[in-house]
Amino acid sequence: MKEEIREITNRYKELMIDYRRDIHAHPELGHDEVRTGRKVADILENLGLEVKRNVGKTGVVGILKGKKGGKTIALRADMDALPMQEKTGLAYASKHDGVMHACGHDMHTAILLGVAHVMRDLKDQFEGTIKFIFQPAEENNPIGGAKGMIEEGVLDDPKVDCMLGLHVWPFLKSGEIGFKEGPMMAASDRIFIKIKGNSAHGATPNEGIDAGIIAAQLMVALQTIVSRNISSLDACVITIGTINGGYRYNVVPDEVVLEGTVRNLNPKVREKLPRMIEELIHGIVGGMGGKYEFKYVSGYPALINDAALSKKIEQSIRNNPKYDFVPITQSALGGEDFAFFAQKVPSVFMWLGCRPEDITAEEFVPIHNPKFNPDEKALQVGLETMTMATLDLLSGDEKKMTQKMEMSEVNYIG
Amino acid sequence: MKEEIREITNRYKELMIDYRRDIHAHPELGHDEVRTGRKVADILENLGLEVKRNVGKTGVVGILKGKKGGKTIALRADMDALPMQEKTGLAYASKHDGVMHACGHDMHTAILLGVAHVMRDLKDQFEGTIKFIFQPAEENNPIGGAKGMIEEGVLDDPKVDCMLGLHVWPFLKSGEIGFKEGPMMAASDRIFIKIKGNSAHGATPNEGIDAGIIAAQLMVALQTIVSRNISSLDACVITIGTINGGYRYNVVPDEVVLEGTVRNLNPKVREKLPRMIEELIHGIVGGMGGKYEFKYVSGYPALINDAALSKKIEQSIRNNPKYDFVPITQSALGGEDFAFFAQKVPSVFMWLGCRPEDITAEEFVPIHNPKFNPDEKALQVGLETMTMATLDLLSGDEKKMTQKMEMSEVNYIG
Amino acid sequence: MKEEIREITNRYKELMIDYRRDIHAHPELGHDEVRTGRKVADILENLGLEVKRNVGKTGVVGILKGKKGGKTIALRADMDALPMQEKTGLAYASKHDGVMHACGHDMHTAILLGVAHVMRDLKDQFEGTIKFIFQPAEENNPIGGAKGMIEEGVLDDPKVDCMLGLHVWPFLKSGEIGFKEGPMMAASDRIFIKIKGNSAHGATPNEGIDAGIIAAQLMVALQTIVSRNISSLDACVITIGTINGGYRYNVVPDEVVLEGTVRNLNPKVREKLPRMIEELIHGIVGGMGGKYEFKYVSGYPALINDAALSKKIEQSIRNNPKYDFVPITQSALGGEDFAFFAQKVPSVFMWLGCRPEDITAEEFVPIHNPKFNPDEKALQVGLETMTMATLDLLSGDEKKMTQKMEMSEVNYIG
Amino acid sequence: MKEEIREITNRYKELMIDYRRDIHAHPELGHDEVRTGRKVADILENLGLEVKRNVGKTGVVGILKGKKGGKTIALRADMDALPMQEKTGLAYASKHDGVMHACGHDMHTAILLGVAHVMRDLKDQFEGTIKFIFQPAEENNPIGGAKGMIEEGVLDDPKVDCMLGLHVWPFLKSGEIGFKEGPMMAASDRIFIKIKGNSAHGATPNEGIDAGIIAAQLMVALQTIVSRNISSLDACVITIGTINGGYRYNVVPDEVVLEGTVRNLNPKVREKLPRMIEELIHGIVGGMGGKYEFKYVSGYPALINDAALSKKIEQSIRNNPKYDFVPITQSALGGEDFAFFAQKVPSVFMWLGCRPEDITAEEFVPIHNPKFNPDEKALQVGLETMTMATLDLLSGDEKKMTQKMEMSEVNYIG
Repeated sequence: MKEEIREITNRYKELMIDYRRDIHAHPELGHDEVRTGRKVADILENLGLEVKRNVGKTGVVGILKGKKGGKTIALRADMDALPMQEKTGLAYASKHDGVMHACGHDMHTAILLGVAHVMRDLKDQFEGTIKFIFQPAEENNPIGGAKGMIEEGVLDDPKVDCMLGLHVWPFLKSGEIGFKEGPMMAASDRIFIKIKGNSAHGATPNEGIDAGIIAAQLMVALQTIVSRNISSLDACVITIGTINGGYRYNVVPDEVVLEGTVRNLNPKVREKLPRMIEELIHGIVGGMGGKYEFKYVSGYPALINDAALSKKIEQSIRNNPKYDFVPITQSALGGEDFAFFAQKVPSVFMWLGCRPEDITAEEFVPIHNPKFNPDEKALQVGLETMTMATLDLLSGDEKKMTQKMEMSEVNYIG
Repeated sequence: MKEEIREITNRYKELMIDYRRDIHAHPELGHDEVRTGRKVADILENLGLEVKRNVGKTGVVGILKGKKGGKTIALRADMDALPMQEKTGLAYASKHDGVMHACGHDMHTAILLGVAHVMRDLKDQFEGTIKFIFQPAEENNPIGGAKGMIEEGVLDDPKVDCMLGLHVWPFLKSGEIGFKEGPMMAASDRIFIKIKGNSAHGATPNEGIDAGIIAAQLMVALQTIVSRNISSLDACVITIGTINGGYRYNVVPDEVVLEGTVRNLNPKVREKLPRMIEELIHGIVGGMGGKYEFKYVSGYPALINDAALSKKIEQSIRNNPKYDFVPITQSALGGEDFAFFAQKVPSVFMWLGCRPEDITAEEFVPIHNPKFNPDEKALQVGLETMTMATLDLLSGDEKKMTQKMEMSEVNYIG
Repeated sequence: MKEEIREITNRYKELMIDYRRDIHAHPELGHDEVRTGRKVADILENLGLEVKRNVGKTGVVGILKGKKGGKTIALRADMDALPMQEKTGLAYASKHDGVMHACGHDMHTAILLGVAHVMRDLKDQFEGTIKFIFQPAEENNPIGGAKGMIEEGVLDDPKVDCMLGLHVWPFLKSGEIGFKEGPMMAASDRIFIKIKGNSAHGATPNEGIDAGIIAAQLMVALQTIVSRNISSLDACVITIGTINGGYRYNVVPDEVVLEGTVRNLNPKVREKLPRMIEELIHGIVGGMGGKYEFKYVSGYPALINDAALSKKIEQSIRNNPKYDFVPITQSALGGEDFAFFAQKVPSVFMWLGCRPEDITAEEFVPIHNPKFNPDEKALQVGLETMTMATLDLLSGDEKKMTQKMEMSEVNYIG
Repeated sequence: MKEEIREITNRYKELMIDYRRDIHAHPELGHDEVRTGRKVADILENLGLEVKRNVGKTGVVGILKGKKGGKTIALRADMDALPMQEKTGLAYASKHDGVMHACGHDMHTAILLGVAHVMRDLKDQFEGTIKFIFQPAEENNPIGGAKGMIEEGVLDDPKVDCMLGLHVWPFLKSGEIGFKEGPMMAASDRIFIKIKGNSAHGATPNEGIDAGIIAAQLMVALQTIVSRNISSLDACVITIGTINGGYRYNVVPDEVVLEGTVRNLNPKVREKLPRMIEELIHGIVGGMGGKYEFKYVSGYPALINDAALSKKIEQSIRNNPKYDFVPITQSALGGEDFAFFAQKVPSVFMWLGCRPEDITAEEFVPIHNPKFNPDEKALQVGLETMTMATLDLLSGDEKKMTQKMEMSEVNYIG
């Protein structure tokens, strides 16, 4: 069947490029993907899929049924663009001022449309169901588009067994696909701390409560959460990005506001942090006579690739001699709201190389840049990889692989 | 002669009130005292004094010569008002919008004009010379008006032997005069620290230099200058009034700016501080990989009443049974640019009670308040006190009193 | 009468020297002044005074009644020596190994015995009662000897109206006497902080609670009490003298112990400090997940010279042309348990110059040094000064002088 | 051949147990393995291997040559015991007071002797050379035994192509073998910081330099290296284990000594740390007026399993259906001096399950405990695994697998 599949995927090469360029030329911001969503839905309908429009505001779901029985596999692409003025000079550059597909979601959407075409052609050859999930607003941290679709039942009825997604990745070349079992991308939350003291003349700080020195003491103490209270094996970052307080050089500040970001890869760590941070604030600020407001805004959770599923997908990719599987050993600290799906069902999120062979990683323009221009060869790589992986999953047996051991609880230390 | 003097001072009671109310109604900001200066100069000229106009921009000096020989005594009043909308509702309230004599300089000027009248009447009865110095811009820290007049030679030719000044003081009642030997008011300087790091994404602070945590560490370390490096017997305050840095909650700040005030009473302490502060900044910021800009702007020095002169003036005041001398035991941390004169010649600066007998200190509206309304009875107290003190100084002998011992160098500690 | 007094005091010059040398040769530690106390009591009894022995363990009180009526004045000397091996090489050096009168209490006792002789001779010439208080254990901070005598009623029956004491002072020359109105010597308390965490391997601090970093954070925060929470006009020192914790370089410390001293001059400040320090400890340690023990041991309070009494004693000293009154402007941070008396009755404590004219302060060996050797001429100065002051107080009228103003509550700051 | 190999390994089951028990009964501390080394060398000689005794003091090397050509594979076991009194009550418990094989090195040595027996039997069936390295003093961090053997050329002549080692691991059951590609165990270094100030009375800290507050400030600042300057993806711990300074509660400490451990997994991080730490010390201590001594003692480096070799060994283990390969996802923070070998040649270090099936990890007595008692069934697992892996490596082809990507340099962060 492999031969046949490759032949079929080749059919849609040009079409995917057309799709991608059209979407690229008409980028839309998160939860505003009206044209894109309509286009996607129309194509899916034309393919004969059962289509749900406006799921989670502007999302689209297409359901393709193969032969009776089997599993339900979900495949996800994100559709939104960034508020950025494109500067690529491409013929199909953005026609929308100040909006650009600078994060490659146009590629993701085109690939998933390609997969829909291929799988429709193959639908008499596999058992099971495929859900094509085109989500909005991936860039809208902390809200995002995935959560809304989940709340509207996108993973139910039929219940999804496992799920795949991908992202173009400039640090891999076209033809390379990689991912990492376990945590691959970080939880990304936000903190807001207002420290309140009492103003006084700068010459008599004893007549007030100096919110400035409390803030300084707190910032210094906050370092100990990462350096002392979280295992060094669990990546964790707390960055205070802004600090602002005081009215005048000679007046004791009565208020200092700190805003920051909190990142980590281990959900157990993430769960503990709001309380750990607040206890520290409570102690330091209270001990120094101040008051505070503290808000901890949860954004995207860590994206965690399922261990057993990872093995299967790795094998599926390795089975295709045309492309290279690149094991990823180090997580990235960026957020990705595919993580919400991965919290609900076993999932794997892949990085799809999109850098032309002859350009080094240093030279290549990265994502979120107005000149980002991924290699369109990656479309075919993504199409084949996702198609094969989906077929392998639908036909696969379910014996679990040996589970990973959590070494963070080991106390062998010399 | 005392009898006669009191009789003479009584003559000018009403005139001082007139002067004061007219000046009060026409307040002028620092270095803009055109009308006030002209009025003062005209009065002094009419009294037959040798008058210099526009000294140190808008200052006025009047020279009155008594009998040949003797000492030269300088008396100083300040003439400038504050940028504040008066709300006293007085008949003679400010006619200049947003400008008000809320610090009593109108009183000071009127008193010194009164003294000029009296001394002119007595000029055949004393040996020596009196310089009446009407200075501008006392409120203009760090520049001030005293420095400019000194630079233009107001203390020379003839050289001033000693000098007196006064300030209305709401914490004393009308009829009370007080001061403190040694430091009475604080040096008041200003610091500006810019900490420079390098920006980076908040998830990867290791790729930048976090100016925020450097600022926090520095603020915390700055406390040790006061708590460890300056004798606790030497009052010293370092207050950081404003702290601002960073662009966005999830970006490592590349710059944080701190601005603050530095106060102290001991010139030896003040002299050491710029270097002490900079060494600390240099060490902390450098050790943490950052760079910095540091500015230390010297404002008014500490106002230090000469020990020997203090004894004489205290005695002079105590000799007048009508009024009470109140020894002041604790310095104030405010600045006063009379301090520049006191650096050059032995001087005494007095606080002149201006609170009506029947109002408590808590009820009385303080200076720098739009409803400040000093008791005009204080004009007569100031006139008599300054006149007597001047005459006592002109007639006094020069035997020095035992000098004070600087106990900060004592090491008797159990 | 002045003439006569001087003549009488001259009679006892040699006797005082004898007393002093005998006591010097037989020094005794605090609450062990058996020989000294007996000698003192015997002399007082021989003079015809009413004597109480063993007051506050080893203290002695002699009561001399003049003519009927009048006030009761208490005069105090301390009798104890230091645990130190004398190295003066004097003929009358200590005969007791490891014990030495290195703080001049032998001088104080001899002077007060001299005063008893003189006042006995004058007892028909003054109205009132004099209590001669010879206290033990001045060096025994925090217990001291004064408290015990007060508890046994030394200030009652008849009730003491005011009280004088003195201390030899190497920074003044023989013939100089000085003191400072208000706080002159510091309150001296002791703190003990034990910080408790949980041990863990140094590689996994997250499995324990690092008492070391909590201690560091606390020490840093403690600086803000002095730098931010106490007026800079109120001298205050918090010094952590010892810091010890941890077992091994690669084990997270579960306990760190800090011990320190707290000094200040203003009783209102002292009163607030235990709570301020504990609130800070409570906040910091609690916020960082630790526990603590905190002990605040009160030692001697600040020694505060009564304002009105100070004026009288200063005048009394100034009236004696033979000696110089030296106004002291800066307090010392040492402790002195005369402070307990001064808390109960209006008191003045004087510093008595004891440095020979021809030796500079830098060259002169200070107190608490094994070569301390005060000028015995100071005995006569002390005798005259105390005698005159006592007589002046007994004959003085009671009109209070204008009270000092507490400027720390003034808000004039520019 | 697999069948045959299994049959041969079975021959030595009992012999390995005998070896292990004899070694267990006669434990010797690091660099004192005289009896153990002699025993090992004698056995190897009897097997006909070329043997070098006393390599790196007490180490032993046996060289077994197969058929001409081929690679050179080194296999390593460690021989030293711990200074600990055994409390297992086993029949073959330690006969040496205060010395015990509580870390399983007796198991490692017995297994490697077993491998030597098997490979000798097979020597006509493989091409290449096998070096059996029995090293001393693995527990002697920071010196260790590996370094000495390397310096004496154990990896040369013939040059070793790759190397294997193993350690019994209580968190895996008998029959499980696991390891992690890349860093698996931590670099473990030691720091020593002496902060020097100047002593002074606690009441006048300004007359000294307070080494205590400098130490506190430094400890607080040290946290920022981990929290700000090292990527959160690179595990790194800096623990100050002991802090000691000061003489007396009321004396400013002139010296505080800090000792600590530094752990990390990434050699690039380790390389930067000494300079980073010293720059921070230099800045903080210098800025606060102190001086310092700093020593950074390098211990064992991070143990890093070669990526390509890991794949091969994993496959080799997976090919044996009797045992389970357990992928390890989290490194341990303990040190292991096999790391020195791994720095020189591509290596894999394995964890060999040694917990009986019916005991949970929580119940099982861990290593470095006087009751540690590993399951002897692990001997056979170790023997088979190492034998097969060695044969697979000798027969394997050399095509490199795709190299891992270092994601710590990726800047995709949202």
